[in-house]
Amino acid sequence: MSRRLLLVSNSTLYGGGYLQHCEHNISHFFGKQVKRVLFVPYALHDRDAYTKTARDKLKSLGYEVDGVHEAADPVEAVRKAEAIFIGGGNTFRLLKALYDNNLVNEIKKRVLQDGVPYMGSSAGTNVATVSINTTNDMPIVYPPSFSAIGLVPFNINPHYLDTDPNSRHMGETREQRITQYHEELNTPCVLGLREGSMLQVEGNTVTLLGTTNARLFQRGKEPSEHAPGSDLSFLLTDAQ
Amino acid sequence: MSRRLLLVSNSTLYGGGYLQHCEHNISHFFGKQVKRVLFVPYALHDRDAYTKTARDKLKSLGYEVDGVHEAADPVEAVRKAEAIFIGGGNTFRLLKALYDNNLVNEIKKRVLQDGVPYMGSSAGTNVATVSINTTNDMPIVYPPSFSAIGLVPFNINPHYLDTDPNSRHMGETREQRITQYHEELNTPCVLGLREGSMLQVEGNTVTLLGTTNARLFQRGKEPSEHAPGSDLSFLLTDAQ
Repeated sequence: MSRRLLLVSNSTLYGGGYLQHCEHNISHFFGKQVKRVLFVPYALHDRDAYTKTARDKLKSLGYEVDGVHEAADPVEAVRKAEAIFIGGGNTFRLLKALYDNNLVNEIKKRVLQDGVPYMGSSAGTNVATVSINTTNDMPIVYPPSFSAIGLVPFNINPHYLDTDPNSRHMGETREQRITQYHEELNTPCVLGLREGSMLQVEGNTVTLLGTTNARLFQRGKEPSEHAPGSDLSFLLTDAQ
Repeated sequence: MSRRLLLVSNSTLYGGGYLQHCEHNISHFFGKQVKRVLFVPYALHDRDAYTKTARDKLKSLGYEVDGVHEAADPVEAVRKAEAIFIGGGNTFRLLKALYDNNLVNEIKKRVLQDGVPYMGSSAGTNVATVSINTTNDMPIVYPPSFSAIGLVPFNINPHYLDTDPNSRHMGETREQRITQYHEELNTPCVLGLREGSMLQVEGNTVTLLGTTNARLFQRGKEPSEHAPGSDLSFLLTDAQ
């Protein structure tokens, strides 16, 4: 399988600019063959402003950007795309717009069958997985399904946050929320990607990149910690 | 309209026991006429354990508790209920189970037409409003709709949390999330109920109770702060 993915936890890291913390990863991932990237701004309300932000940043790395919402036919735009980048924002809004524009299966086909490189950030990382069941976002709109593009057979929790032992807030911790997910039947494993970390998938090889550990939750097992550089290829096969 | 509601932000306040911070409000709300309360434990996985927790607490206040899941026919149990209490946990799981058991309309009818007192806590407060679009919970299951019981014409964000100016975490703040909700068309106002606060509704009168301010978000307006004791009855009419 020629699948190529770069799944980033967060678009902006504290103290840095938009995509600054992963710009060398982006350059390495898209490489010199890619000239134009199709950007999907559906997760934010102002699609033009969002596309400008992505365009300015990727231009500085040597890539032209087309906004999928600028195309007369978004499906045709995906069919012609050299590379796809889905940005962060609200995951429910994003997934609903992907369904409304008939892009879920089209993107899946392009990435898994044609080997088109796919980059996602935050919500764009969520929708690359099995489902959006482990997003942190507020359900501001109702998508026709929580099933997502399914480029990998596991789920991701972006912006993964450790429990703050000093907190007086009584809402569930992130770990408790993921544990609740695993109380449900037939739920895949969940990789908690802390801010600063990302996953690169090349065919059947998965590597954790960035500067922070990831925390893996498997149904009925103790969570495990994985350091940057770890080979997580087992997530593609036996970790469900 | 004979509607009577007690909508609590959180089941447990830091440093206290289950429902301890609002026990005098509960006693005052159910009063001496109510003898038995129908408890809905659907928001947590272990319904028996959860019902025991609620039963022990309410027994100490003088009320017997029946778990709706213990009834052969949950709809019939709602039809016979003297009072209803829906507990917190995962809002998606709760709302899906309410639909699966055909209780959404039945509870609405009992509360709005028959004047059966309704108490909700956290997720149980969310499902009493227009929709669960402003829950904080992880979408671990897919309910057939985000529309909720609709006992009031506005939404609530329980466990409302102020922005922490010292945080280095880059996920959206609670206020940003609610603002994103209001970017969508035809969205009702959202009352952010901080932990420690609750809303009592008696017919067409709404009063903020508890120990913390509430923050009100109306589409296209600046948010406003309201102190305990405030009359928020305008939320029932002109605040959409």
